[in-house]
Amino acid sequence: MYQDRIRRPALMEKLMTAQQAARLFKSGMTVGMSGFTRAGDAKALPLALVERSRQEALQLTLVTGASLGNDSDGLMANAGVVARRMPFQSDAALRRKINSGEVMFIDQHLSETAEQLRSGDLHGIDIAVVEAVAITPDGGIVPTMSVGNSASFVQQARQVIVEINLSAPLALEGLHDIYLPASRPHRGAIPMLTPWQRIGSTTIPLDPDRIAAIVITDSPDSPSNALPPDAETDAIARHVIAFLEGEVKAGRMGPELLPLQAGIGTIANAVLHGLVDSPFRDLTMYSEVLQDSALELLDSGQLAIASASSITLSAAMHDKFIRELERYRKRVILRPQEISNHPEVVRRLGIIALNTALEFDIYGNVNSTHVGGTHMMNGIGGSGDFARNGALSIFVSKAAAKGGKISSVVPMVSHVDHTEHDVDVLVTEWGLADLRGLAPRERAPLIIEKCADPAYRPALRAYFEQALQRGGQTPHVLEQALSWHTRYRDTGDMRPTTSI
Amino acid sequence: MYQDRIRRPALMEKLMTAQQAARLFKSGMTVGMSGFTRAGDAKALPLALVERSRQEALQLTLVTGASLGNDSDGLMANAGVVARRMPFQSDAALRRKINSGEVMFIDQHLSETAEQLRSGDLHGIDIAVVEAVAITPDGGIVPTMSVGNSASFVQQARQVIVEINLSAPLALEGLHDIYLPASRPHRGAIPMLTPWQRIGSTTIPLDPDRIAAIVITDSPDSPSNALPPDAETDAIARHVIAFLEGEVKAGRMGPELLPLQAGIGTIANAVLHGLVDSPFRDLTMYSEVLQDSALELLDSGQLAIASASSITLSAAMHDKFIRELERYRKRVILRPQEISNHPEVVRRLGIIALNTALEFDIYGNVNSTHVGGTHMMNGIGGSGDFARNGALSIFVSKAAAKGGKISSVVPMVSHVDHTEHDVDVLVTEWGLADLRGLAPRERAPLIIEKCADPAYRPALRAYFEQALQRGGQTPHVLEQALSWHTRYRDTGDMRPTTSI
Repeated sequence: MYQDRIRRPALMEKLMTAQQAARLFKSGMTVGMSGFTRAGDAKALPLALVERSRQEALQLTLVTGASLGNDSDGLMANAGVVARRMPFQSDAALRRKINSGEVMFIDQHLSETAEQLRSGDLHGIDIAVVEAVAITPDGGIVPTMSVGNSASFVQQARQVIVEINLSAPLALEGLHDIYLPASRPHRGAIPMLTPWQRIGSTTIPLDPDRIAAIVITDSPDSPSNALPPDAETDAIARHVIAFLEGEVKAGRMGPELLPLQAGIGTIANAVLHGLVDSPFRDLTMYSEVLQDSALELLDSGQLAIASASSITLSAAMHDKFIRELERYRKRVILRPQEISNHPEVVRRLGIIALNTALEFDIYGNVNSTHVGGTHMMNGIGGSGDFARNGALSIFVSKAAAKGGKISSVVPMVSHVDHTEHDVDVLVTEWGLADLRGLAPRERAPLIIEKCADPAYRPALRAYFEQALQRGGQTPHVLEQALSWHTRYRDTGDMRPTTSI
Repeated sequence: MYQDRIRRPALMEKLMTAQQAARLFKSGMTVGMSGFTRAGDAKALPLALVERSRQEALQLTLVTGASLGNDSDGLMANAGVVARRMPFQSDAALRRKINSGEVMFIDQHLSETAEQLRSGDLHGIDIAVVEAVAITPDGGIVPTMSVGNSASFVQQARQVIVEINLSAPLALEGLHDIYLPASRPHRGAIPMLTPWQRIGSTTIPLDPDRIAAIVITDSPDSPSNALPPDAETDAIARHVIAFLEGEVKAGRMGPELLPLQAGIGTIANAVLHGLVDSPFRDLTMYSEVLQDSALELLDSGQLAIASASSITLSAAMHDKFIRELERYRKRVILRPQEISNHPEVVRRLGIIALNTALEFDIYGNVNSTHVGGTHMMNGIGGSGDFARNGALSIFVSKAAAKGGKISSVVPMVSHVDHTEHDVDVLVTEWGLADLRGLAPRERAPLIIEKCADPAYRPALRAYFEQALQRGGQTPHVLEQALSWHTRYRDTGDMRPTTSI
């Protein structure tokens, strides 16, 4: 039984139920769990920890790759199991606990968590819980649909719990490329020179003696919750494609462009989807997550290779991926998120970074995370890793939200995740602002006229003109800079009733 | 004549006056000039361009390494020669022109300018003006006290003007290490694994046919304008040293620490000066600029090696450096700023980054550049290159300014250059806040109690408590968040008259 999944016979005695494995946890522990954008998360232990917390209080620091699926984040948060959480989440129930101050959320650049664990800046991992396709004879772990921080967790944890997921096909083996940088100060260069290069092993190495438990599961990943493209995302895609065509025409890149990154979510997925009708060929992706659009581009032949840390698909696309895995596996590589998002590799390859903004201001500063300047949505994720160090940093957003009651273009963002230094191009359905080489005073008119919803342009122009009277490199009317946000909070509508 | 400085005889015919060379310029050109934090700047051409602009209008885009000395930035700005300026400046007259909107200033991460020029994101360099110690027989340029972006300018410019500075000793030759990354997509790893490694050539390679003019000068660099340490900077230094001692004791680094970076200016210089009395040994610097403190640490034996892009010294220390150059040259390396600040190398080596904040907020966001949220001081410089990608990001500031009328710790910064994600440690003369692994709600009390001027703590506590009532990951009272800045603007004093 399970010989194809547990290939080291002595490990069979570590088989136990999730409930038994949950007894290994003590309140106060730091736990590293697999899972990145709903892919490859541990399925059984989160539920078993919730169950155990009904008998005795259990408060953990939970570190993952990124967001978990299967409502695990919400169930654990509601049970009070998660006292501290890093580096990313996207669960409605957990979000409420974070914003009420019940859960301490440490929002991090996704490339940095592993580095901070390695250097001891963060508390070490007590127990790692990692979903696997199989354990090899030497103890190596074959990950499932994401790598995330699992390799770092396994490297550092005192005890490792492996969840063997029988629903994850054995054919996933070989998809992964596991490489971790050495500790400083004796670190070499990361030898990756192209997105398609393999620089590590196909399994996560692990001394089998540190395996404390093996739990069998068979639940699938939660499907992607990205929405289908619509007229506005189609328009955004067209603007991005026209811009990239211009870059090729100007000789700044070839028709294969530079390696693409696209953030998780509806808009980035829709923009990539739009590339199916584009003239580009031999594209590569060096991203953190592959969504349906990546497979569409692989199928259309435009995408030659896709490297990421996770694959998050709709149910239909997931079935297709598994069914045709032999075809995809030659062109898909899954890496630790420290490597998929690493500043060294991102800068070297010259990534075109495509990420979603919650809002941006007339000078090009971007808010990716905080609704109304205070309430966490999901987290910064890898957007900073790519926007700062890539070759081109593009942020996309619909120009307005809530039926026009919120403008995504504001006088001053209520929270800054990406400064104007790290924002090259802004895009909404109305148009694209190419900000390269422009000073803030030159950026403002371009952003207002190209990107803002026309209903908000007069007020934005008026704000900018009034700000210019005050002078400065980045002119503002400070006492009104955040008034759009307070107006929305107080009236449910950002639109000015009189003048600004 | 000049045989030791112009070692390719055919080039003697390119000798001309600065006034003659200035005739090569046309309005609208993009000009790349050497110079980084007042070191190694071209001395004659700026004056000649000012002179020429009296006869006919001359408006240039001026790109440098960083700030120029000899009032060149101000003289050129006042003459209307500088229409556009990047990536950094620190001149009072130019600053006025920037803040009045007469000069468009593009404030950039110092590692990125060369990359953007190479990729064509910025307009190419028409003419490079580079100060040199000498020109070698094959046309190679030996830089003076900085490298900055000179190698990139020379590589890209259609025409190169070399200023041979007779006051720069020939013994500077060999100090420099010139390496530039290749164009994408065919770029290898930067082969630097230690701060003391040499990976390039000692001269900037140049096809002599592109030398359009050689001008002889003999003016020295402007001396550093950093102020001497005082009681507050001494206190800041003590806090930083105690923190680093704690890191060593906790086993997170050895007594040689990790390579140090320190920003330009009084406080960073004073903190490094404080290390002279510290227990650390075999320290290394991998920084952008070396100030007096670096030489003091080399002299005290605590600093083994110093790598940077520029050397900016007081007059006395400059004389000593030149006098004892044979002793220093084995332990000092000057590199292109793209390499001294490169994300790849900064992340690999694990730099301890020490930079100065204008102000920071209770959640750890840092404003490095904009006075009152609108008016440019100098520029972001390399602070973002190091703070984002280094191992430890420390920001220092005096807790108050203008006799206590300005608090450096505010509810919300009026401009964000570094987000809380990139800020590990904050230090004022009152104390040090170690923010690693903390959520924003945990950061606030620590920052208020450890770093704020005691006179401002009650108001900061009151703001935070009121903000907590509103909830969120990063609680704020939005309508009051920038009220400290508007109060200072309106009354000349940030101190609240009543409650917050």
